[in-house]
Amino acid sequence: MMAGHDFYANKNVLITGGIGFLGSNLAIRLVDLGASVTLYDGLIPDLGANFFNIKPIKDRIKVVIADTGDRSAMDHYVRHQDIIFNIGMHSCHLDSMKDPVFDIRTNVVPQINFLESLRYHNPETRVVYVGTRAQYGRVEKPPITETTPLNPMDIYSVSKQAVEWYHMLYGKICGLQPTSLRLGNTYGPRHQMRHAKYGVQNYLIRLALDGQQIEIFGDGSQERELMYVDDVIECLLLLGERDQCAGQVYAIGTHERVTFLELVKEIIKACGSGSFAHVPWPKDRKIIEVGHVVTNYSKLTAHTGWTPSTSLSEGLSITAEYYRQYKKHYW
Amino acid sequence: MMAGHDFYANKNVLITGGIGFLGSNLAIRLVDLGASVTLYDGLIPDLGANFFNIKPIKDRIKVVIADTGDRSAMDHYVRHQDIIFNIGMHSCHLDSMKDPVFDIRTNVVPQINFLESLRYHNPETRVVYVGTRAQYGRVEKPPITETTPLNPMDIYSVSKQAVEWYHMLYGKICGLQPTSLRLGNTYGPRHQMRHAKYGVQNYLIRLALDGQQIEIFGDGSQERELMYVDDVIECLLLLGERDQCAGQVYAIGTHERVTFLELVKEIIKACGSGSFAHVPWPKDRKIIEVGHVVTNYSKLTAHTGWTPSTSLSEGLSITAEYYRQYKKHYW
Repeated sequence: MMAGHDFYANKNVLITGGIGFLGSNLAIRLVDLGASVTLYDGLIPDLGANFFNIKPIKDRIKVVIADTGDRSAMDHYVRHQDIIFNIGMHSCHLDSMKDPVFDIRTNVVPQINFLESLRYHNPETRVVYVGTRAQYGRVEKPPITETTPLNPMDIYSVSKQAVEWYHMLYGKICGLQPTSLRLGNTYGPRHQMRHAKYGVQNYLIRLALDGQQIEIFGDGSQERELMYVDDVIECLLLLGERDQCAGQVYAIGTHERVTFLELVKEIIKACGSGSFAHVPWPKDRKIIEVGHVVTNYSKLTAHTGWTPSTSLSEGLSITAEYYRQYKKHYW
Repeated sequence: MMAGHDFYANKNVLITGGIGFLGSNLAIRLVDLGASVTLYDGLIPDLGANFFNIKPIKDRIKVVIADTGDRSAMDHYVRHQDIIFNIGMHSCHLDSMKDPVFDIRTNVVPQINFLESLRYHNPETRVVYVGTRAQYGRVEKPPITETTPLNPMDIYSVSKQAVEWYHMLYGKICGLQPTSLRLGNTYGPRHQMRHAKYGVQNYLIRLALDGQQIEIFGDGSQERELMYVDDVIECLLLLGERDQCAGQVYAIGTHERVTFLELVKEIIKACGSGSFAHVPWPKDRKIIEVGHVVTNYSKLTAHTGWTPSTSLSEGLSITAEYYRQYKKHYW
């Protein structure tokens, strides 16, 4: 973990999706850095909100439970914030194809209302938006960079791209200073572990810890970049404190790439239990599968100095230990 | 006008935005070709719906007045359609920046509901979606082609891109056969002439016919490609009848480029009245101005044989005559 981040001392910081995976890990860091943190969360069923996530800091933060698109609530809470991390969105690729109307209603519409709240009550604030690598979809010419053509392969990923553009346009509408991080698969403590609908790499850890068999669709040869949550939080902090990142979009990845098969083997090793078997691709998964993931994150490094610092085996080991210890709060 | 289009004889065709500019011109051609045409229109205030547009065919078509996102209506009317032209969207760039929530509510949400109607009641139909050139925004490396990076510069253009992607994804969700035409500035008979909020090139014709002064923002040196409506209708017919256009996106333009200043002079000439003056750019217009427009439409020509066949002076002359004759129905 890098030192620094004096920037955040006594800063007012709002985090949407604040009780979920990224939000809670970020909040814990921010409290440690002396920030005044407000967590805003809609507690949408099946998503990552878990009050156990924020137990270590619960007496040192403010918690607001409301929908991101609730103008009454958001108009109030965005005021006087120095920086906002906009993390809270419904994030299941598969569900978005089953019920696109629900995806638009729970992602696109609330987000545009959130931006309207900023426009009228904190128009020039810094906002770090967490987008998704899936905005690129299946990539014809790897590695991924910020200029890789956008090719979202499911409704959720279209919504994420639209909302990223909306953020950028509010720079023109009201002077907002947005940054977008197009984040890929991230694992670590405080992820939801009840289902595999999103963040599947985390659910695999549950299966392994429970001594169960992990199903690998096809041969598992597709390459993945797994981001450890502490590295991602470090990146978010850097993006938030640097003015020159305003108006910018960043791709993020790691130099350590593994095939899905290798990942499963690493997970089983870190957990000390579990097994795997190959099964055919289910049709609904196959049509949204993006193939290899290889990212060139040199723009991010150039602008912020960020590089990932946690190896996969190290990250998986910490993660397995966390869930072993706090299993009853996540299973 | 090209001959042919036997494809449409006795075909059931639904047109959203059917009483507007493109919809009504398309309907008139389709009726002539022997198609069984249903026009669907939400009569949204300030948009192009005008019952005078369809007067020549009013006894030979079916007209449905309902919102595009009205599942009761749309679930019923999409059935048994052989091909659907999805044209009806709210289309003001400037309004979308003033009230983004309204844009999402009137464009994105109804369109996803429209696609759900297709999914459950006509899942594999051909749909020709009319997108906008503005999905590209300000283009760094002209000419525009289908692979030019997407850079929408206002909320409306983001919505149009999102809805284009939604169409393509329904190919995966239910086997829909969508085609998108990213259409630029189009002029001709049957456009709304009450305000300049969209389709400004048409409003300029009104100003000239009324002997008024046309304001040119800045020096008017930005290049434009003006599409004549009959050429666009010809293109839509070709896209609808060719199976190989399913799943494809097309850029469209014309070989005859003019600066905005030249366009204004041509309009004044065609109308035989009017004048012009240069004025500074209004701030709200400047931030959404896209600069030069130059398109390479060779993919469209290769797949359909389409090329534009109406010169600007010819098109403006026909258009000026139309509005001179039917002024009372449009002013």
